[in-house]
Amino acid sequence: MKDKLTIIKVGGKIVEEPETLAALLRDFAAIDGFKLLVHGGGRSATKIAAQLGIETQMIDGRRVTDQQMLEVVTMVYGGLVNKTIVARLQALGIDALGITGADMNILRSDRRPVKTVDYGFVGDVKEVNSQALATLIRAGVVPVIAPLTHDGKGSMLNTNADTMAGETAKGLANDFDIQLVYCFEKAGVLLDENDDDSVIGLVDRDIYTQLRNDGIVVGGMIPKLDNAFEAIDAGVSEVIITKASSLDNLALGTHIK
Amino acid sequence: MKDKLTIIKVGGKIVEEPETLAALLRDFAAIDGFKLLVHGGGRSATKIAAQLGIETQMIDGRRVTDQQMLEVVTMVYGGLVNKTIVARLQALGIDALGITGADMNILRSDRRPVKTVDYGFVGDVKEVNSQALATLIRAGVVPVIAPLTHDGKGSMLNTNADTMAGETAKGLANDFDIQLVYCFEKAGVLLDENDDDSVIGLVDRDIYTQLRNDGIVVGGMIPKLDNAFEAIDAGVSEVIITKASSLDNLALGTHIK
Repeated sequence: MKDKLTIIKVGGKIVEEPETLAALLRDFAAIDGFKLLVHGGGRSATKIAAQLGIETQMIDGRRVTDQQMLEVVTMVYGGLVNKTIVARLQALGIDALGITGADMNILRSDRRPVKTVDYGFVGDVKEVNSQALATLIRAGVVPVIAPLTHDGKGSMLNTNADTMAGETAKGLANDFDIQLVYCFEKAGVLLDENDDDSVIGLVDRDIYTQLRNDGIVVGGMIPKLDNAFEAIDAGVSEVIITKASSLDNLALGTHIK
Repeated sequence: MKDKLTIIKVGGKIVEEPETLAALLRDFAAIDGFKLLVHGGGRSATKIAAQLGIETQMIDGRRVTDQQMLEVVTMVYGGLVNKTIVARLQALGIDALGITGADMNILRSDRRPVKTVDYGFVGDVKEVNSQALATLIRAGVVPVIAPLTHDGKGSMLNTNADTMAGETAKGLANDFDIQLVYCFEKAGVLLDENDDDSVIGLVDRDIYTQLRNDGIVVGGMIPKLDNAFEAIDAGVSEVIITKASSLDNLALGTHIK
């Protein structure tokens, strides 16, 4: 039987509110067994870029990353946000190790090819060094991963945090029994998108088809669920979509199997 | 017999000139056996602080680090400089892992007490987690350490890079046969401070006493050599002071034993 590993992905918003972050890290620290955190940081990057006189350009919700913006996200994601989390987890007795995909070559990407849009220094994950990650985790280290990868040719690449969490989970699925948790602004997949009490507890492929046919799962939730099922297909045991404030009771979220 | 470990400390200036950095990293990559890099980044921090409208205040060559400046150095040292080096070393086939003292609790500090000067969030190293570092190094990982530690209570602390290199060397002296190399603007300890060809090849305690009596070692070189002998007393095999451009031939520098 494989050991359990809980992978939590938290977005930039949660990370950037000191009190919410403190609560989140306490809940994360309390999770039993092996665990790993992937964080965002987009709001901080946008703020610091603006202070540096660098304009943020988003296309379809993705950040266009020129050389200047790459320096900003490398600083903010890999330095400020990552190390703030690491220092706080250490204070909670968690042996956190803050890394990017470049460190120990954990996640290598290809720079996204230019089709209609040139996103610049943005990476699509190609390879997960699961052996190095698994060794660290088994040694009791808790990786804290910033949404940055590298191209193996000397450049860092900005990389979507949801994707990094998914690819990391898939990469480690042979080594661990993985529960992948996406912290979301809402309490899960909702029957009524305005009612956090209407969480659908379990979504399998049949239910998903039904929910799409019924027009309940629409818009941005579709790629999220598609990614979740892709992770399940790759051997991840369970994907959970929940509110960050519910990390202490994962039963409350939507469980995708 | 202990395995050899080469610890290289490079200053901020070297790190911030792209061509010098590229040459340095090539030389570093070519060093045989176990190795570890400690880097600075003060000039970049000062530049980015200025762009953010934050004034840099130095007292006796040390940066005063208030909350805002702590965020800047955490971003710049732990993110920008550290990950730039890591990505480039990975491209050179080196399995680099960029860390601060907070990561895996590698270097824990106490915040420096206020005497005449309040340096703010500045740390004096108290504890080196040599076991974690030695395990990584023996696994073939090359640590790249940014000049930041943590207080164990949740805060990062700005920490002098020379001190970090020295403390790391002393902490690992039981595990490895350590050569600690300080890259310096000059070629070593010089008989004539204006002549890089006048390097004194070997300095032991007797020679050091003589050089001080003769007024050849003065000013800022005194604390450097005092620190070097402190490292030797703590079991470091050899301390070398040399130019970064001479990393490919360490015989050229001053060897302190």
